[in-house]
Amino acid sequence: MRTLDLNCDMGESFGAWTMGDDAAMLKVVSTANIACGFHAGDPSVMRRTIAMARDNGVAVGAHPSFADLYGFGRRRISGERPEDLEAQLIYQIAAFRGMAEVEGHPMTHVKTHGALGNMAATDPELAALCARAVVAVDPGAIFVSLPYSCMFEAAQKAGLRVVCEIYADRTYTDAGELTPRSEPGAVIHDANQSVDQVLEMVVNGHIPTTGGKRLPVDAATLCVHGDTPGAVTMAQRLRAALMENGVTIAPFAGR
Amino acid sequence: MRTLDLNCDMGESFGAWTMGDDAAMLKVVSTANIACGFHAGDPSVMRRTIAMARDNGVAVGAHPSFADLYGFGRRRISGERPEDLEAQLIYQIAAFRGMAEVEGHPMTHVKTHGALGNMAATDPELAALCARAVVAVDPGAIFVSLPYSCMFEAAQKAGLRVVCEIYADRTYTDAGELTPRSEPGAVIHDANQSVDQVLEMVVNGHIPTTGGKRLPVDAATLCVHGDTPGAVTMAQRLRAALMENGVTIAPFAGR
Amino acid sequence: MRTLDLNCDMGESFGAWTMGDDAAMLKVVSTANIACGFHAGDPSVMRRTIAMARDNGVAVGAHPSFADLYGFGRRRISGERPEDLEAQLIYQIAAFRGMAEVEGHPMTHVKTHGALGNMAATDPELAALCARAVVAVDPGAIFVSLPYSCMFEAAQKAGLRVVCEIYADRTYTDAGELTPRSEPGAVIHDANQSVDQVLEMVVNGHIPTTGGKRLPVDAATLCVHGDTPGAVTMAQRLRAALMENGVTIAPFAGR
Amino acid sequence: MRTLDLNCDMGESFGAWTMGDDAAMLKVVSTANIACGFHAGDPSVMRRTIAMARDNGVAVGAHPSFADLYGFGRRRISGERPEDLEAQLIYQIAAFRGMAEVEGHPMTHVKTHGALGNMAATDPELAALCARAVVAVDPGAIFVSLPYSCMFEAAQKAGLRVVCEIYADRTYTDAGELTPRSEPGAVIHDANQSVDQVLEMVVNGHIPTTGGKRLPVDAATLCVHGDTPGAVTMAQRLRAALMENGVTIAPFAGR
Repeated sequence: MRTLDLNCDMGESFGAWTMGDDAAMLKVVSTANIACGFHAGDPSVMRRTIAMARDNGVAVGAHPSFADLYGFGRRRISGERPEDLEAQLIYQIAAFRGMAEVEGHPMTHVKTHGALGNMAATDPELAALCARAVVAVDPGAIFVSLPYSCMFEAAQKAGLRVVCEIYADRTYTDAGELTPRSEPGAVIHDANQSVDQVLEMVVNGHIPTTGGKRLPVDAATLCVHGDTPGAVTMAQRLRAALMENGVTIAPFAGR
Repeated sequence: MRTLDLNCDMGESFGAWTMGDDAAMLKVVSTANIACGFHAGDPSVMRRTIAMARDNGVAVGAHPSFADLYGFGRRRISGERPEDLEAQLIYQIAAFRGMAEVEGHPMTHVKTHGALGNMAATDPELAALCARAVVAVDPGAIFVSLPYSCMFEAAQKAGLRVVCEIYADRTYTDAGELTPRSEPGAVIHDANQSVDQVLEMVVNGHIPTTGGKRLPVDAATLCVHGDTPGAVTMAQRLRAALMENGVTIAPFAGR
Repeated sequence: MRTLDLNCDMGESFGAWTMGDDAAMLKVVSTANIACGFHAGDPSVMRRTIAMARDNGVAVGAHPSFADLYGFGRRRISGERPEDLEAQLIYQIAAFRGMAEVEGHPMTHVKTHGALGNMAATDPELAALCARAVVAVDPGAIFVSLPYSCMFEAAQKAGLRVVCEIYADRTYTDAGELTPRSEPGAVIHDANQSVDQVLEMVVNGHIPTTGGKRLPVDAATLCVHGDTPGAVTMAQRLRAALMENGVTIAPFAGR
Repeated sequence: MRTLDLNCDMGESFGAWTMGDDAAMLKVVSTANIACGFHAGDPSVMRRTIAMARDNGVAVGAHPSFADLYGFGRRRISGERPEDLEAQLIYQIAAFRGMAEVEGHPMTHVKTHGALGNMAATDPELAALCARAVVAVDPGAIFVSLPYSCMFEAAQKAGLRVVCEIYADRTYTDAGELTPRSEPGAVIHDANQSVDQVLEMVVNGHIPTTGGKRLPVDAATLCVHGDTPGAVTMAQRLRAALMENGVTIAPFAGR
């Protein structure tokens, strides 16, 4: 019997501004990646989101990014001293980990957000830096990563347990990378097709690529989006389809 | 034989901007209160300052304040939901504590900065909120506070070990509070007079007040300033005068 | 025939976060107070909001506040040097005015936001500072203010044209001030009662107070809220009730 | 008789943090590029710096950059929507222009700062965006640019008057670009050599390149640094050497 985790980025509200419907999404997913206040979230949002996750039996992890509130962590930032970025990541993960302890719901994992994650997927030095920051704070943390990426390799090399994350609505290149959004066919808009892709990855254990290949994958967690219209409905549908196909939904942290 | 700690606010540089001469001051003091990135400091500055303190045998603590970089934490901010401020303090202390662990030099204490400290000194609810935030992250942390203040009482009530902080260059009212800077005679500009006041507080164990009273005090740490011209020289002078009078300089954390 | 302006705070989205439904509200109101990026808004939001207002024939003004994005300008900030705050207001108004010129839709007015407005209503020095900042940038700007307030007097004294703003859903004290939200009966929750209060102020020219007085008022503009659930519906209802009672809705700037 | 302008970046202090010695530098240069609060500076610093420049007869211009206070505008930021960046530049230039008007010392020019300037020098679309932002606010503003760059061409194409900026302490490639700092020989550390290079550019009208070429240049302004140790002394030396060689120092704005 197969098990899969559903993860979602959460805690992305900031001050007076709300983003997403975290309360509803916490009824659907098994793991929450929670913003750490640098690209989204704030201490109060972080605390409430951890508490809500705890009350829903949802595992929590840090979701750090660049210090870029205006750009929501989606802007690519370079030319920074590596030690400065490393310290920023350590700071975010440490703050999150401490807050999770305060709420009695320990941090299970770390996943990078937005542009930082995209850049680290193809930049071995940046990936190593990210892995170092996690190990510095908590060598027992699980690292969530796309397979076939520099980040995956770097996290393994750093001694972290790494789990594979898959996407329902993105296509994959023959190299196993996500097709860049700038290219046609990058996003799967048909819900049925999304469900089919997930089942193929989870049940059959391979990633279908745009070039017609099938790349082996040990899918541990499926990323569902929380900040798009219809996000909760789509997540519920994926969850239902997985369960109908004999997949149990549970946090990867408990595997 | 008497022992006194010398503490100084540090790690207040930010990004491209430098404040104070932390390297020099770390040769003089025994305890450093390090900014946590909300009113001053940044993750990289925080990390380097902790490492430098460790290498100089100087104890380190979190120095949180309002989220007010522009105002350097000196502006009084009110009308905020108490739970939001509490979360901000927990976040800062947790981030600092985690960073100190990463650097192998554990956090010994917490001291509030600027307007937050001034407001908590006379506001019992705010003082209780600050104490709660410290206890939430680390009930073993020492709290540094002015005596004769709401903050001192609140920290004790919360079960924290509290140590008394004294000032060399500020006069005290009959109530044991610092004379407000807006009033004449609030600041002692004469270095000899500063040294005398410190010796009276440390050696004789009482605070001289502007009304001619002598209030008992168990002085544990003397706050020396780091961001004024001549700061290092004045700190060296106080240290020398204390040692000449048989006072040993050592972190309160080790008492 | 009577004329009234309907004004609404707008352009309060920030980066990836949306607040309110400005497009819908611009179909209802005649004047928009647009955030200047210090407590809400950003340059791109500001530019788009001005352009939308222009296309809907809605007058635009600057809506400056404290530099307090996290607190949405609702936190009371004090202890700042007056010249620093004055420069912040000049900066915001100048940026807005320039942007409005770029969009071919000149700034007509200024209205202070949130805690700054509340504090200036009862603090003559702060009110004078706000008025000075407006005059410095544009002595021809109209100032929108509650009547019976320090701000109203200060703006008049500074030579600005001042127009009276009224509220539909707030009660007034015998001194003509808004009943503080902390007191019972401060907010009118019944829509009919709100409409009645507005008609009394606009048609009969007086403010009913909680003590049973009737204070004369030359109401020029009614503030409708944009960031609450049902905001657009309530604004439409007020507009309809006013028009049914023979009141023309038009910008005060054109009076 | 030849005339040259000396320009320096100024107004880069922020809140409690000081950078550079603007008062001293204003005795040496003829033009000041003043930070607009996004990468450095704040409204109060901006206002004071404009007033000091006015009192010293020094021309002032806006020095906008990315919204990147932490990185001092030196980090390369990409992946942003062009319209967002354009609005940010318009906002900064409009705020500066308004503040300069308030101080009775009108803005003469615009020069991009840091990473934005470096990126625009080689990216025609970004250069065109920058030029559009200047034209939108003030088509009469002078644009300061390196020669042999996309930015120079874009500003001319947009109808702006463009003046050539030269560097004393940087070498030039055969393409007329600054040798990247990452390459050996990029920076001239010998003061005499710096003076010689400037005289060659100003008096003989050509840029010496690392490949031994001589590229024609109509040098209008020399950039002197303000934030390095010995900055004021070096600027004084360059000024003296130029005057000894018959060059008059005066703002390009008055040419």
